[in-house]
Amino acid sequence: MNWANGTHDTEEGDGVPWDLNVDDVERVAIGAGILGTGGGGNPRQGALRAKMQLAEGLRLRVIGLDELPDDALVVPMGGMGAPTVGIEKMSRGDEGKLAVRAVENYLGQPVLATVPVEIGGGNSFAPMIAAAQLGLPTVDADGMGRAFPESQMVSYYFDGSSPEFVVMIDALHRKVIIENVRPTKTLEVISRAMCVQMGGTAMVADAPLTLKRLRETCIPNTITHAHRVGDAVMTAQHTGEDPIAAVCNVTSGRVLYKGKISDVHRRVERGYNFGHLDLIGLDEWQGSHADIDLQNEYLICRVDGVPIAIVPDLITLVDSERGTPITTEVVRYGLRVTILGIPAPEQLKTEQALQYVGPAAFGYDLPFTPLPPS
Amino acid sequence: MNWANGTHDTEEGDGVPWDLNVDDVERVAIGAGILGTGGGGNPRQGALRAKMQLAEGLRLRVIGLDELPDDALVVPMGGMGAPTVGIEKMSRGDEGKLAVRAVENYLGQPVLATVPVEIGGGNSFAPMIAAAQLGLPTVDADGMGRAFPESQMVSYYFDGSSPEFVVMIDALHRKVIIENVRPTKTLEVISRAMCVQMGGTAMVADAPLTLKRLRETCIPNTITHAHRVGDAVMTAQHTGEDPIAAVCNVTSGRVLYKGKISDVHRRVERGYNFGHLDLIGLDEWQGSHADIDLQNEYLICRVDGVPIAIVPDLITLVDSERGTPITTEVVRYGLRVTILGIPAPEQLKTEQALQYVGPAAFGYDLPFTPLPPS
Repeated sequence: MNWANGTHDTEEGDGVPWDLNVDDVERVAIGAGILGTGGGGNPRQGALRAKMQLAEGLRLRVIGLDELPDDALVVPMGGMGAPTVGIEKMSRGDEGKLAVRAVENYLGQPVLATVPVEIGGGNSFAPMIAAAQLGLPTVDADGMGRAFPESQMVSYYFDGSSPEFVVMIDALHRKVIIENVRPTKTLEVISRAMCVQMGGTAMVADAPLTLKRLRETCIPNTITHAHRVGDAVMTAQHTGEDPIAAVCNVTSGRVLYKGKISDVHRRVERGYNFGHLDLIGLDEWQGSHADIDLQNEYLICRVDGVPIAIVPDLITLVDSERGTPITTEVVRYGLRVTILGIPAPEQLKTEQALQYVGPAAFGYDLPFTPLPPS
Repeated sequence: MNWANGTHDTEEGDGVPWDLNVDDVERVAIGAGILGTGGGGNPRQGALRAKMQLAEGLRLRVIGLDELPDDALVVPMGGMGAPTVGIEKMSRGDEGKLAVRAVENYLGQPVLATVPVEIGGGNSFAPMIAAAQLGLPTVDADGMGRAFPESQMVSYYFDGSSPEFVVMIDALHRKVIIENVRPTKTLEVISRAMCVQMGGTAMVADAPLTLKRLRETCIPNTITHAHRVGDAVMTAQHTGEDPIAAVCNVTSGRVLYKGKISDVHRRVERGYNFGHLDLIGLDEWQGSHADIDLQNEYLICRVDGVPIAIVPDLITLVDSERGTPITTEVVRYGLRVTILGIPAPEQLKTEQALQYVGPAAFGYDLPFTPLPPS
């Protein structure tokens, strides 16, 4: 692959409409991995599947938030499940297409586009892959600007609304439609239990939003943002600059810690990965310890027991040399990693949003202390 | 209530089409309780709900297996859940109607009748109540001739087929559609897990059968049979004859044991009631002990440790004085009961059927030794 072949204008949202090529997919994968804070499904798997669509002559089309009529129906979607299960239990590849078709059939109305529920990890690609197979575009936006483990943690529903229904499809093409469950937290509990029954992973498509409503509730331009982050990493790798500094530059992020993974505790529970990482410091952090809690995603980072970053701010692990993301399902003893702290999008930091994605929503009796911009 | 007001010809299947009146409901409740072998949902609750339909001027219409065209769509339905939950968590009353409507909408075709999945317990009434609210009849048949705890134990699916989909509705009107899950045993596992999420009970409607297919796979005339059993009990109560002898007479059943309940172990597990009863003998059984295992329904009866009746034959507990059924959710210490053994319908005793409802299907390493006809 020629790193310089990325065709896309990397200013967020500027380059749409846009057909991703193979090099763009690489960039989005790296950027979505970094924004995914360890979760959202394995980005390499997602990228491989996305490239398969291109190899079959299908288009990965991304459009802006004003390129369809206000009342166009857009389906939010993504894979559900524990990342450690997702990386072992391969998807069939057409679950997303079937899920969108099921939404259309159930509603009796055509869907005009898909949109990610979360830009993080492989879930950046899930809506693009489904759309490619259906000849539809994907809207350049998402509901998190990162990844979170639960369905109620999507900005589309921060106003207390819930999807009227969701469709779940698994790799055996088993289909489940769950309707009229409120609040969205309860929908999460019920659909997660179903996901466990489906083997631990499933593709989930929500009842569609109108483009107008999506525009009012989304984190905009996050596919192009992920591309820009990935492009920064790859460009720095090529030119010999520091890829981590490049990531910080395009994300307003900062290095929180450098160290070596000294222990990984990870378990599958109720359909999520829960766990804990321990690190011992390197470079200027020599002699200190850090630790990170995870629920599919990295939630809180402490140094010598003192919290230094917490949800909804992004805590992400990258390879200290290459700047590439290290997700929760592959992190392991001995890796030399840099912990990055990236300020969450403003939409996640309102009082209303913090009810869904703040420290208390994850069981922490701590205030949300935002990372200062770097 | 005037016991003699039962309007129905009590020879099975002869009196249809037939509109049940209040007295018929009483008879069906007693008969379905006896045929329910302890499960199928509380028959008194079902009867109360059925009478409410009559009080509102609705009709509880029962038709025979040849009163609609062969291709008429008939929805098998019944309540799912642990009986101990069902008796505490009241249904809303219109779940069945919504479930049938959801089946029609999902399929895009009208349903012409309902039919019980099991005649036992309150589930004899569930399809009639839904049908009453929809202005439809219920077919005089079911899929068990009794009650069983699991979805694959329905004669409609003994050939290895599965419902293409099922609709579940709970008392909050939450709706779940599960499609393309095979075999039916797996559908049971998945829908049971969903039922637990729905609070432990839900109304379930299966994808419809054609009347032709229903005729080929059902246990026929079981609503009229339940009525006949209940009528035998009430008539004997009125005339001072032995109601238990009357039940044996119309069911080819026999008294297996008389005794006093000395202990009840009952727990809710995975959405079922599991448990065990101990009895000490009375009358000719004085000095002996009996015990019964249950999974929603009574499964096996042993006297002094020796099995004397086992599924699929019907093991049912009745009040020793009145002949009325004692279901698994209300059985308690100190009751004086008679254990009846009733030969299962022939359709449950084929080699194919025994794979689904024989002793091994419930984990017993015992052959099925049928009760001889009395």
